[in-house]
Amino acid sequence: MINVAIMGATGYAGEELIGILLRHPGVRIKNISAKIEAPARISRIYPKFQNRIDLVCAEPDLKEIIASCDLVFLALPHTVSMEFVPKLIKAGKRVIDLSADYRFKDAAVYEKHYNHRHKDKTLLPAAVFGLPEIYRARIKTARLIANPGCYPTASILGLGPLAAFGLVEPGSIIIDAKSGVTGAGRKMSESFLFPQINEDFKAYKVDVHQHAPEIDQELSKLAGKKLKVTFVPHLLPLNRGILATIYARKTPAKQRAKEKLASLYRKFYKKEPFVRIRDEGEFPALKDVAGTNFCDIGIKESAECIIVIAAIDNLLKGASGQAVQNMNIMYGFAEDTALL
Amino acid sequence: MINVAIMGATGYAGEELIGILLRHPGVRIKNISAKIEAPARISRIYPKFQNRIDLVCAEPDLKEIIASCDLVFLALPHTVSMEFVPKLIKAGKRVIDLSADYRFKDAAVYEKHYNHRHKDKTLLPAAVFGLPEIYRARIKTARLIANPGCYPTASILGLGPLAAFGLVEPGSIIIDAKSGVTGAGRKMSESFLFPQINEDFKAYKVDVHQHAPEIDQELSKLAGKKLKVTFVPHLLPLNRGILATIYARKTPAKQRAKEKLASLYRKFYKKEPFVRIRDEGEFPALKDVAGTNFCDIGIKESAECIIVIAAIDNLLKGASGQAVQNMNIMYGFAEDTALL
Amino acid sequence: MINVAIMGATGYAGEELIGILLRHPGVRIKNISAKIEAPARISRIYPKFQNRIDLVCAEPDLKEIIASCDLVFLALPHTVSMEFVPKLIKAGKRVIDLSADYRFKDAAVYEKHYNHRHKDKTLLPAAVFGLPEIYRARIKTARLIANPGCYPTASILGLGPLAAFGLVEPGSIIIDAKSGVTGAGRKMSESFLFPQINEDFKAYKVDVHQHAPEIDQELSKLAGKKLKVTFVPHLLPLNRGILATIYARKTPAKQRAKEKLASLYRKFYKKEPFVRIRDEGEFPALKDVAGTNFCDIGIKESAECIIVIAAIDNLLKGASGQAVQNMNIMYGFAEDTALL
Amino acid sequence: MINVAIMGATGYAGEELIGILLRHPGVRIKNISAKIEAPARISRIYPKFQNRIDLVCAEPDLKEIIASCDLVFLALPHTVSMEFVPKLIKAGKRVIDLSADYRFKDAAVYEKHYNHRHKDKTLLPAAVFGLPEIYRARIKTARLIANPGCYPTASILGLGPLAAFGLVEPGSIIIDAKSGVTGAGRKMSESFLFPQINEDFKAYKVDVHQHAPEIDQELSKLAGKKLKVTFVPHLLPLNRGILATIYARKTPAKQRAKEKLASLYRKFYKKEPFVRIRDEGEFPALKDVAGTNFCDIGIKESAECIIVIAAIDNLLKGASGQAVQNMNIMYGFAEDTALL
Repeated sequence: MINVAIMGATGYAGEELIGILLRHPGVRIKNISAKIEAPARISRIYPKFQNRIDLVCAEPDLKEIIASCDLVFLALPHTVSMEFVPKLIKAGKRVIDLSADYRFKDAAVYEKHYNHRHKDKTLLPAAVFGLPEIYRARIKTARLIANPGCYPTASILGLGPLAAFGLVEPGSIIIDAKSGVTGAGRKMSESFLFPQINEDFKAYKVDVHQHAPEIDQELSKLAGKKLKVTFVPHLLPLNRGILATIYARKTPAKQRAKEKLASLYRKFYKKEPFVRIRDEGEFPALKDVAGTNFCDIGIKESAECIIVIAAIDNLLKGASGQAVQNMNIMYGFAEDTALL
Repeated sequence: MINVAIMGATGYAGEELIGILLRHPGVRIKNISAKIEAPARISRIYPKFQNRIDLVCAEPDLKEIIASCDLVFLALPHTVSMEFVPKLIKAGKRVIDLSADYRFKDAAVYEKHYNHRHKDKTLLPAAVFGLPEIYRARIKTARLIANPGCYPTASILGLGPLAAFGLVEPGSIIIDAKSGVTGAGRKMSESFLFPQINEDFKAYKVDVHQHAPEIDQELSKLAGKKLKVTFVPHLLPLNRGILATIYARKTPAKQRAKEKLASLYRKFYKKEPFVRIRDEGEFPALKDVAGTNFCDIGIKESAECIIVIAAIDNLLKGASGQAVQNMNIMYGFAEDTALL
Repeated sequence: MINVAIMGATGYAGEELIGILLRHPGVRIKNISAKIEAPARISRIYPKFQNRIDLVCAEPDLKEIIASCDLVFLALPHTVSMEFVPKLIKAGKRVIDLSADYRFKDAAVYEKHYNHRHKDKTLLPAAVFGLPEIYRARIKTARLIANPGCYPTASILGLGPLAAFGLVEPGSIIIDAKSGVTGAGRKMSESFLFPQINEDFKAYKVDVHQHAPEIDQELSKLAGKKLKVTFVPHLLPLNRGILATIYARKTPAKQRAKEKLASLYRKFYKKEPFVRIRDEGEFPALKDVAGTNFCDIGIKESAECIIVIAAIDNLLKGASGQAVQNMNIMYGFAEDTALL
Repeated sequence: MINVAIMGATGYAGEELIGILLRHPGVRIKNISAKIEAPARISRIYPKFQNRIDLVCAEPDLKEIIASCDLVFLALPHTVSMEFVPKLIKAGKRVIDLSADYRFKDAAVYEKHYNHRHKDKTLLPAAVFGLPEIYRARIKTARLIANPGCYPTASILGLGPLAAFGLVEPGSIIIDAKSGVTGAGRKMSESFLFPQINEDFKAYKVDVHQHAPEIDQELSKLAGKKLKVTFVPHLLPLNRGILATIYARKTPAKQRAKEKLASLYRKFYKKEPFVRIRDEGEFPALKDVAGTNFCDIGIKESAECIIVIAAIDNLLKGASGQAVQNMNIMYGFAEDTALL
């Protein structure tokens, strides 16, 4: 039985974490905190938790968190996590950080794309990028997990085998991604009011989104060479889900290879409990993965081009579900506990 | 050709007014203003107006408005309108005010329900409640129109004949109303963010909404006696439209009368261009009126009870469409100009 | 460990049952059937179940179902269930029927409102109306459960205490109910196409819906006298959830009583794991119960009238969740197993 | 004043045509027909047209149509139009066909992609592809207009200048298109039921959609050489609008050219009343064009790649709006009559 704290409980990822962990037989939620005007029962903030959890959500009290918990989930905004992480690690706690603060090995990349000085570079080398499909072994013993972004989770899983086996031209990768509104976090902005989003659809941060370098970093590692994607995110008028439609030109290596891509993907993800590959030419819809921790992938090959579609629930495999999957790996629970 | 100003152009009603008036052959929009951080072309604020109107929207400049316009539309928040109305009237302008500031004959009722002192009681007697179906004759010559609220428009039109002919018990009227999100105005509030509204539905201000006394005032006038409704509004996950489901117990007078209610309603609204009565037992859907200035009404009678359903587009018949209908009456345009 | 069959797996309730039962540690799904053109893996029909269940869904084979299962869920259309139930009961199986076929004690009421002859009146007396909050003791030993309708579940739970204690005038009850689209089942009809429903809202079967007599039957029992409600359902542009706004005139008994209604409701539902009462004057939203098996209830009292709002997820507490709650009671599982 | 007939009035495009033409001062709708079980007033089929048009919609009666109309709009399914067109043309009528039947100069392409023999090849050479931005001169005198598909309208307008000036590599063009649900027509299919579409998003007909060859045909003409796009359409959970995100590699010619693409696009579309170009790096949203006949285009250039986003309302510029624009050109009305 492990004791956990959730910092940032009033955001969408924090809310989702509470829901998942309440179903987890090996976890006790001991502390819930957030930037909040006045302390309030979490079941007042989210009436859906009435009769299910009785904790009060208040401003974070690190001393209390350290005294009562083994593991801390940080569902905090970018740049805020690194205020707390060093103290928690120093106190011997294990940490799963859902923000971007520890995702980049090169602090300069973070600083450029998040437009903020990095205050805790010393922990960067020890932080493990929390994508179990690639880093499971290191996650087991990690003290600090940098939980991946939602777009990167879908994109890296969708492109992983192609990058690893050198099947696509490095400069040709286009990721046309579409996300539900919770992907942007609970932000007070006129552009997220219901009548602005409903019956609308648009691209944003065209080719300048901060998740692109995260995708580049991980795909480059898999490919063994520098790789840079064209990334265009769009905003869908729905609550949850990311669908990434990916296009890339084949390399001569691929053109020679005879094996069906779906079969190659199946081998690559053979032991993965949360990656499902469709038959060649069949593609996932958001509703196949919404409310689940799965990443579903479909593939089609034309004469010159490969088309891959990867779908996840941005709050589960793209955030809180993956965080709990990481926790399950770290503490030896069955990897799918509370996630099915 | 008349020259008009629109104050409060950045709200939903202001935006809708621009769209309607751009199609009006007898109107020139001369001035557009709003509470705004910095002046901006209205076609930058609403790209849909690109190539269609080139005015700059800035903080209101009353002097300029008075110099250039015959008629001023105020699409301002409640309590703000009455800062401007007296000056405009004094300068000889005609005014159509979409706020609640001049809707109540008794300032005390306004002050109680809007929780704000009324600063311009002298103009209250002259203000005409802008519901053409009841006050058309007075609207023609009015200098100041108090454009009705959206819920009151649907409710008063739906109950008008019943109140006027004494067919229902005064204390028995229940209005269960449902509104699209634009009905609440463009408010920055967490509860209006897309993921809060989408896939959700709820009642709010249960039996304490500020539109109830507006309904009471007008129905009491029609009935010739004091009448008080039970009013429960709900928030629909869609952009535009109000549907009010109305229940009332029949009086003995009604129980004796043989005439079908639908036929009685048709007579009552015989000359009305924007009220449509369904056959007895058939009811309107929001999509029948969305994007139109119509109020559609369906009626059904059971042994003891009458059920009426009235539907409007809250931004058209419930706000800006009705405002232009009033303008058409005031200036002698065909009443449906720019409204079909 | 019990073995179950699901008949009617291609409807919304059947799909939901599979999802819930896959999380239930005491249940093995052994047989899945439906009216279907050709047998197909259930994970092809619902790709979200890929890697989770591997059964083939085919036309029902009663012999096989009887041989392999202890309990059968019937998620079949009305009038179809009674073709199968007698045979299953005769073979010694326990049955939870989600259709309306066994809900009415008086077959004549069923025949009138479902416009179909009842073919199995002999089992009607033994069938238990599966609302645990009222019939838990009988559910424990029942062989045949008539799982309640979605509107009746919300309405009866919302009105239960008022009916039982005689606090409202029997003829005055108005239920203005609003349901998500899955409430109507997976019907091929032009009126359920996305563009017909999206951005629309309307009433249907005004005062003639077949769930009204089900509500009347159960409230009359609770009240100990004949009671008849006015029931108007509406269709919401969202997937799941029912919110019933209920109005009733107080009896003199209520007018004398001093106790707050919320407190009286809390006592009435004191031991109920799935009913939650809000503080007086606070009301539930659909999103508080969507995805859960809870029924949330809010109450407000004015001078003459009581307003109650009850909210459920129509596919959970209104159908498949309640069916599993009944199963848990029948087999001695903790009542909330697989339901939190 | 011209007299028109609308064939196929019960589809989305037919419904939209009625709405537009009712606002057109130079048009009288004389005949409305559709495949329909029994004749019915069009105001019964669409209650929103109550009090506005009183015609009965029945099966088409060609003799009557020919006797009473100058111009016939065919909003019929593909393969049905060509049953009627030859007879109408022979009778001297002008025809605007919204189906695909006359869009292809090469009947073999049509037959391959629509999987149906072409029965009227003789009229193919005379049919004018109804994209005013390219064929205005020929539209003026055309007897038969093949109104373009919705995806092709957005795609061809978005890529037109790039193809015409040879700025992108012919084999590199990727069109990732997203459409609202009315784009698919009013089809009875389980996959278009509200709960299937709502909160979902998916690709369909990946790289095999029948609109791709229509795009290829027109872009090849503009480019003066064979051009073949990769086209992946997706289905958005909203009623109306198409947004196409287009990617292409630059040619050396483009790499040398200094002129901003936005400026080049503005010149190309200088006299077009319904094409609006955003400033470089700014992009349209669906809501900027929904309910309008505009095509809005945004452009961004990176080192190797050009990104273009084009947005239209699929029922207006993508179907019925463009059809009326063509009619305005054919009959010498101001081109934007009834379209603003």
